[in-house]
Amino acid sequence: MQDILPNFGEVSPRPAKYTEQVLFGEIWKRPGLSPRDRSLVTCATVIAANRASDLQFYAGGALDNGLTPRELSELVTHLSFYLGWTICGAAAGELVALYAERRIEPHSTVGAPMLELDPESEDRRRSSVEDFVAPVSRILADHTNDVLFGDVWRNPDLAPRDRSLATVVALIAIGQAEQMPFHLNRAMDNGLSESEISEVLAHLAYYAGWPRVMSACSVAGKVLKERRSPPR
Amino acid sequence: MQDILPNFGEVSPRPAKYTEQVLFGEIWKRPGLSPRDRSLVTCATVIAANRASDLQFYAGGALDNGLTPRELSELVTHLSFYLGWTICGAAAGELVALYAERRIEPHSTVGAPMLELDPESEDRRRSSVEDFVAPVSRILADHTNDVLFGDVWRNPDLAPRDRSLATVVALIAIGQAEQMPFHLNRAMDNGLSESEISEVLAHLAYYAGWPRVMSACSVAGKVLKERRSPPR
Amino acid sequence: MQDILPNFGEVSPRPAKYTEQVLFGEIWKRPGLSPRDRSLVTCATVIAANRASDLQFYAGGALDNGLTPRELSELVTHLSFYLGWTICGAAAGELVALYAERRIEPHSTVGAPMLELDPESEDRRRSSVEDFVAPVSRILADHTNDVLFGDVWRNPDLAPRDRSLATVVALIAIGQAEQMPFHLNRAMDNGLSESEISEVLAHLAYYAGWPRVMSACSVAGKVLKERRSPPR
Repeated sequence: MQDILPNFGEVSPRPAKYTEQVLFGEIWKRPGLSPRDRSLVTCATVIAANRASDLQFYAGGALDNGLTPRELSELVTHLSFYLGWTICGAAAGELVALYAERRIEPHSTVGAPMLELDPESEDRRRSSVEDFVAPVSRILADHTNDVLFGDVWRNPDLAPRDRSLATVVALIAIGQAEQMPFHLNRAMDNGLSESEISEVLAHLAYYAGWPRVMSACSVAGKVLKERRSPPR
Repeated sequence: MQDILPNFGEVSPRPAKYTEQVLFGEIWKRPGLSPRDRSLVTCATVIAANRASDLQFYAGGALDNGLTPRELSELVTHLSFYLGWTICGAAAGELVALYAERRIEPHSTVGAPMLELDPESEDRRRSSVEDFVAPVSRILADHTNDVLFGDVWRNPDLAPRDRSLATVVALIAIGQAEQMPFHLNRAMDNGLSESEISEVLAHLAYYAGWPRVMSACSVAGKVLKERRSPPR
Repeated sequence: MQDILPNFGEVSPRPAKYTEQVLFGEIWKRPGLSPRDRSLVTCATVIAANRASDLQFYAGGALDNGLTPRELSELVTHLSFYLGWTICGAAAGELVALYAERRIEPHSTVGAPMLELDPESEDRRRSSVEDFVAPVSRILADHTNDVLFGDVWRNPDLAPRDRSLATVVALIAIGQAEQMPFHLNRAMDNGLSESEISEVLAHLAYYAGWPRVMSACSVAGKVLKERRSPPR
């Protein structure tokens, strides 16, 4: 288990102070977002940052905070589609090592009934894919519809609300804020609250850095405003 | 040779299914883009993702699929300018190990005649650099003209069409889609077809993740539309 | 000490030529930016690129070029806020190893008086945070004001001009150019000159890659133009 705290402490007492007092002592303890959700957010950020070597520390913490191995494995699968295969293959390797250490037998609900997505919002999503993706790449449109939304999002191993949370975090962490409106609205439709979003942004400021979060904040502000008083 | 498949398989059977059935079983086998080009695209994405440790697997596959060592080495050189020296130094290190394993003597066409770029499009490119780069940084404008376009792009070790393909992939993979119009037009002028672009986008959805590709798709849509019916 | 030069040389003589003749032989020797500043810029870029393993080479060079261990440690602390905790924890680990090798006792000015920031520009910054951040996340606004600007930026271990330089470099290297206007103006208020900015952009073209720098150049051009003839 790699512990990142000593590194900072030996270099200078100040970042260690921020880590212990501000990040772990204050941010992680705030009640607005559960430790389990903070772990999910942090693991997604660590994977997005291509820091698989830090993942055992945070994934171990995620299990301690109540994320099940089934959810954790599915988080990596889900993120493979949002962060790319090569990044997430390394993350999967870290989970294998963690599960071996903890003697966890991973298994998924292969064969369990797939979730049904809301038909109306699926129709809107599909027609947007037809309008904007299909004219450029039919094959990309098909895989978006059939694999990503038709299969991954419908798998019951991770709740839609958690998939949405992980997706929004991935978009923020890689700096693709222009795609947040769709996924932030979807996240709120799937049950993520405004106050949880507020906490996610502050949590991510430390883990993904202020610039990513500031750009996300500007997009989130517009989305929240529009939901409060939708244009007629 | 690191194989990323077992990692996914031990964590959960589902991502392994996607890898084997969808990615390798379907995407890689589509006829719209040659296996050699898919390897070039994948290697560029793996380098852009700073996953040099996965490169031996994919670079070995690239040689098997017909990319020559000369092209592969020049791909890394070319990407050094588009992804930065520090990322590509690590990639070069992996190629050294791969070539040693395969007993390949790398060599380049130092001394071979340089390619001539189309004078008219070079004039347009230079005057755009004078207008937008030179007022901010004369030295950057000079290195753009003399080193990047005057030397790198003219080297015969990698065809202009392949340089364009690698450059477009790099822009998508790092999320710099706003610079795609210039390079996508250049890629098509250099021989990349619309149907190949369609395949590249679907291929990259898996390797660079959906968000990068969706943003690229939106830019590519505008470029393709304008080429089909250019503004008068 | 890892040396990245041999990698390129064994793959092909061409990138080695660019490294030796163009990058080290020309760019690093240009008088418009001091070697010490070039080291600071390069270290920040290497950290942003998640290439901690290259940091010993460049951080060692930074010490040789006159950056003090105190400044170097504080650079990593500062960047933790701009690039995220997980990336910079790895960088801190490399500094620990470097300091051990050079028998350097790191220490910081804990207890030294904090710097005072210009009250007028602090007022403008705070009111912008109230307008754009607080409505989305009160906690993020508070940590921006109290921790990032109220504590980190006021620490005397790194001069405000150097913090600004590192921040601008981080924004360019991760492709968050839309946040450059605030920080580039702040950098120039803190003493960074136009000609230094011009050199930073050319230096970064090699270390962060041309696309990041081209997007930054377009933003920098607008900022410089506006400072020369501010709108009335």
